[in-house]
Amino acid sequence: MTDTLIPEATTDAAPAASYVDRRGTRHPLPDTAAEARVRADDRAHVFHSWSAQALIDPVPVAAGEGSTFWDYQGNGYLDFSSQLVNLNLGHQHPDLVAAIQEQAGRLATIQPALANDVRGELARRIADVAPGDLDKVFFTNGGADANEHAVRMARAVTGRRKVLSMYRSYHGGTATAISLTGDPRRWANEPSDGGVVHFLGPYPYRSSFHAATEAEETERALAHLEQVITLEGANTIAAIIIETVVGTNGVLVPPPGYLEGVRRISDKFGIVYIADEVMVGFGRVGEWFAVNHFGVTPDLITFAKGVNSGYVPLGGVVISQRIASHFDTVSFQGGLTYSGHPLACAAGVATFEVFERDGILERVRDLGTRVVEPRLRAIAERHPSVGEVRGLGLFWAIELVRDRETREPLVPFNASGADAAPMARVAAACKQAGLWPFIHFNRMHVAPPLVITEEELIRGLDIIDEALDLADAELA
Amino acid sequence: MTDTLIPEATTDAAPAASYVDRRGTRHPLPDTAAEARVRADDRAHVFHSWSAQALIDPVPVAAGEGSTFWDYQGNGYLDFSSQLVNLNLGHQHPDLVAAIQEQAGRLATIQPALANDVRGELARRIADVAPGDLDKVFFTNGGADANEHAVRMARAVTGRRKVLSMYRSYHGGTATAISLTGDPRRWANEPSDGGVVHFLGPYPYRSSFHAATEAEETERALAHLEQVITLEGANTIAAIIIETVVGTNGVLVPPPGYLEGVRRISDKFGIVYIADEVMVGFGRVGEWFAVNHFGVTPDLITFAKGVNSGYVPLGGVVISQRIASHFDTVSFQGGLTYSGHPLACAAGVATFEVFERDGILERVRDLGTRVVEPRLRAIAERHPSVGEVRGLGLFWAIELVRDRETREPLVPFNASGADAAPMARVAAACKQAGLWPFIHFNRMHVAPPLVITEEELIRGLDIIDEALDLADAELA
Repeated sequence: MTDTLIPEATTDAAPAASYVDRRGTRHPLPDTAAEARVRADDRAHVFHSWSAQALIDPVPVAAGEGSTFWDYQGNGYLDFSSQLVNLNLGHQHPDLVAAIQEQAGRLATIQPALANDVRGELARRIADVAPGDLDKVFFTNGGADANEHAVRMARAVTGRRKVLSMYRSYHGGTATAISLTGDPRRWANEPSDGGVVHFLGPYPYRSSFHAATEAEETERALAHLEQVITLEGANTIAAIIIETVVGTNGVLVPPPGYLEGVRRISDKFGIVYIADEVMVGFGRVGEWFAVNHFGVTPDLITFAKGVNSGYVPLGGVVISQRIASHFDTVSFQGGLTYSGHPLACAAGVATFEVFERDGILERVRDLGTRVVEPRLRAIAERHPSVGEVRGLGLFWAIELVRDRETREPLVPFNASGADAAPMARVAAACKQAGLWPFIHFNRMHVAPPLVITEEELIRGLDIIDEALDLADAELA
Repeated sequence: MTDTLIPEATTDAAPAASYVDRRGTRHPLPDTAAEARVRADDRAHVFHSWSAQALIDPVPVAAGEGSTFWDYQGNGYLDFSSQLVNLNLGHQHPDLVAAIQEQAGRLATIQPALANDVRGELARRIADVAPGDLDKVFFTNGGADANEHAVRMARAVTGRRKVLSMYRSYHGGTATAISLTGDPRRWANEPSDGGVVHFLGPYPYRSSFHAATEAEETERALAHLEQVITLEGANTIAAIIIETVVGTNGVLVPPPGYLEGVRRISDKFGIVYIADEVMVGFGRVGEWFAVNHFGVTPDLITFAKGVNSGYVPLGGVVISQRIASHFDTVSFQGGLTYSGHPLACAAGVATFEVFERDGILERVRDLGTRVVEPRLRAIAERHPSVGEVRGLGLFWAIELVRDRETREPLVPFNASGADAAPMARVAAACKQAGLWPFIHFNRMHVAPPLVITEEELIRGLDIIDEALDLADAELA
């Protein structure tokens, strides 16, 4: 079809773009007519998430491999966002591709009421690495419906309705999940689930509790949580849901003792503790589940994304024996057509095999402490616009400020348009230099695929280092 | 792994099962140790939808092809449920499998803010076959989140909150979707979305309006709808959502004029009309969208399942220009990581190619009118337990009664356990004879893959015919 639009003679004048993969192999890219068609279809027919449709200009992506993706011009972008912190094993991992191709040829799907080999195998492998007695898995399509179903289980088991969740959190886009969310994406969707109450979590750099130390932050944040529970009525609260490391809203690593305290308080009041690990599960912070890093066992863990790098939509809830056994003889009132989708589960089983064979968890811990942390600390030293760097494994935030003393954010909370321009300039400089950044409010996050090479990681951090000169310039 | 459990010598005594595909090729099945492992993993680690976990015994499925799937014993089941009315192109359709394998090798996924060739192509093809000016597509993971996002669009555009939906309906498992649902699956999940109001739809066989004819049913059902709107306050109502043909709750085909009336009433009061075609879109009733059969253009159409036969989770909302343009400069406040998933979209594009090449829509209309309808009418004649048969295309219901005069259902509404035993006996007889039925309350639905052969269709209907003797026996 594109041949008829651009005759050979014309394309000779502008040779088709190409890209070079990790092994040095050059691959041709589709011609500019193909790109024009992708852009035309997209603009005419695709309605995009979280956007004003006429104000966006989505970049057509032609190819991806490992930590890099390419546009149709042959521009490569080192993917420091992992496509919404999703592609933990990077673009086009050969083992995941092979597993999907094999399973597609064998049995693409079967409904949830039947039993299936890869569905059961993935559930078993997840149970093997989950903490404590969390040994059953309810599979969903993604993170939002995982959180919806986790809340449903908690409500059914406790007979209570309210759910506590944090300000500065994201839990998904469906009605209960967006109500749980503690960021501005909730605002336009209120009221959705009327049973949600928000509380303040720990954030040492901007303490809501006037704490001077991490220990004080932990102590006061827990006292705040317990106070909210008391004032809401402990016996009205079904669950507390917490991102083990808060993701999009800041890579907020809980200070020592906080999650243990949440566990203790949940037990004290008979509240179900749900750990949302949609973004941080499956290796992002160097453990299968981030709670493992903190030595805490929640009652339910929700997951998605990294379980199979999102190659096939998949999410789920890992369930403790106590919660699961409630539904032995009482029907669980939830479900979906694609629960335990074999194609999705096959990619999940392959993920376990790659993680184990290639030592992904060890790799993340090593690169995080040996490469990322010292380089980010050096960047923080060098740039007056950097207020704080923080993170764990391959999940870090660089928080930008106008003034290190006052900690005034470089751009206001929830800024858009001209207010957000300083961050947009930093982002544009990164893209120009070949890095696709993850930007949220006044922060840049570092969340590359876990298979990123040390050389790529250093190159990406160097690009960020240079781009931050533009943030420094805002302070003048 | 299974080799170590069952040594060669033992398996010789019980030769491995096998199955024969449509082309007469025999395929060996995994041995009994493999089946035991599937069952063990499932029982220990998989938490199932809509079930009391200790009271189910999910059948391990070993293979599927076309209209049939097989267990590990080699028992084949003619799939008259299409795996929850999902596999419109049947099990393991070679074109869909090839499309998935090709796309997996090319670009499995990319995030929603970027542009992608198959994402755009599928959106364009859906827009091409959608009625009126519905020409943009917002992709989701399935039907539930499609309905959630459609309602969100309607609320944003109208500035109103309430949504009207029918009793006897199913719209999905997440919070707003389960609130929209008008069947008992909603009960345990209330209150979820407080903005939903249920009304009664047309159901000529059991008229809520004391109507004697279809024309009267249409007229009175529309008057009822308009009355509910008046009493709820027209200017509080954002949307009316209707399954174009009510699916799980009865294959209720709207009588002539009803949907046109809904369109007229929606226009009169400035209400968004959402057609839920998760189950009936993509060929189930012989049209791309069921609304095409009725000549009606809603404002939004939601879809999932048949768009790619569920080989990769996918759903979405088709959006009219009026609704879409509202979001040109106002941000749409909804989204998800896997929106417009390339692997899922590739299977959708292949679905269009197969439908067009193989004349699937024509096939469905032909088999429906020439084979299914006359045979079901003959079955209704023969069996005193059959109160009514009704349907369209390859989507039919056989409604079973204790008494044709009183129309008392064979089993009570929402029956379970011993109360539901008469239906369970019919289902068991079907399975025994090699047919996997779709049973709901006092009905058996006929919803085979659209690629079913005429011979298979007749064989399946004959099995049902015989099994219904057990229903007749209940009347004695």
